[in-house]
Amino acid sequence: MKAVMSLAAALGGLALMANATSAQEPVKKKGDQEVSRTIHGYDYGSDRLPRSPVTLEDFEKLKATVLLGEGDLNALRKSRAVLEPQVDEILDVWYGFVGSQPQLLAYFSNAAGKPDGDYLQKVRERFGQWILDTADARYDQAWLDYQYEIGRRHHRVGKNRADDADAVNHIHYRYLPALIYPVTATLKPFLEKGGFAPEEVEAMHQAWIKSVLLQVILWSQPYVREGDF
Amino acid sequence: MKAVMSLAAALGGLALMANATSAQEPVKKKGDQEVSRTIHGYDYGSDRLPRSPVTLEDFEKLKATVLLGEGDLNALRKSRAVLEPQVDEILDVWYGFVGSQPQLLAYFSNAAGKPDGDYLQKVRERFGQWILDTADARYDQAWLDYQYEIGRRHHRVGKNRADDADAVNHIHYRYLPALIYPVTATLKPFLEKGGFAPEEVEAMHQAWIKSVLLQVILWSQPYVREGDF
Repeated sequence: MKAVMSLAAALGGLALMANATSAQEPVKKKGDQEVSRTIHGYDYGSDRLPRSPVTLEDFEKLKATVLLGEGDLNALRKSRAVLEPQVDEILDVWYGFVGSQPQLLAYFSNAAGKPDGDYLQKVRERFGQWILDTADARYDQAWLDYQYEIGRRHHRVGKNRADDADAVNHIHYRYLPALIYPVTATLKPFLEKGGFAPEEVEAMHQAWIKSVLLQVILWSQPYVREGDF
Repeated sequence: MKAVMSLAAALGGLALMANATSAQEPVKKKGDQEVSRTIHGYDYGSDRLPRSPVTLEDFEKLKATVLLGEGDLNALRKSRAVLEPQVDEILDVWYGFVGSQPQLLAYFSNAAGKPDGDYLQKVRERFGQWILDTADARYDQAWLDYQYEIGRRHHRVGKNRADDADAVNHIHYRYLPALIYPVTATLKPFLEKGGFAPEEVEAMHQAWIKSVLLQVILWSQPYVREGDF
């Protein structure tokens, strides 16, 4: 019985996601700051954000540790043109996955287990922009500060606030790194549609894995005990 | 000047590792519990270990989130025979990588930056056994408890104690997930040497990525704030 109810909740979530798709506004065009402001809560570059406790120097050491170099930056930037026309389909796959896994859909739902459709929609718009930002790989101070903010929005210190959402107030840490796998594995078929040679697609995919891993590390900062990060 | 000294420290670390290789004892044979006891600090299955705060039920949900299923368990177990004869060469690659990255070698070194050769050697023996345990993929309560202990041995609550080591007392959280990439990427050429078809090698590699990701999540538990995990 519980399994059936979970399935129903998941399908409800998927239906909400389908509505969200059709209602979505076009994502920001490159270099067009005006358009980006139409994405609710998208605060990359905002002066209001607190500074990341992780420095650019710390981040360079992390880049070296995951073997992310110039070739990866080029591959990420090359992936933008491949992925931008497919953003909605990618989000359908990712939202479909979240909707199919009750332990994940729970974080978009209130205490009674009802998914918050408005919240799902607002997050979806920023998630689409995140695909483009990941491909752009700017890795500047504003980017670092925004990663800190994204981490805070997963954690009880900041979840729901940007969207005035009616959902549980904390995403458990363990699911942040866990999602690296399904997000990057499901991206590969989309990277393959750009007409590049298999080794170029593989280079883009590996660069994406490294970048998502780095971002999840940054997002984890608010979860880690003082001095332990 | 600082870069030159870091390089010298790294090369010193590599020399220590080369010694460590020749001195290493044979790793445990499958099913031979007596032999396993010769690995210093290898406490898988020990009654003295505290129970993991992560339950087997929590772990099942994590497995589902990283898409780890029966096919992955088979692929991991198939990888054992491929990797076992290559354990020393794999460790040479991983230790060579750590030795080449000053920000990583620092965790095997004392406050003055001198690597602790005895500590490097003791960790190396357990690291070899870890390759076999990862391939075995038992995922029982004893395994879960030992993952918790491994996490504690990275964190200030337990680092250095098992080996009476003279090294800094805490590995910063951020390098645990970061190491997933170099560890799994460098494993693939070793998986390719088993004579399996490319798609079987790829299945083994993907299963390894999922397993290492799950383990790093478990090892992170001592770093995460109360209630946040």
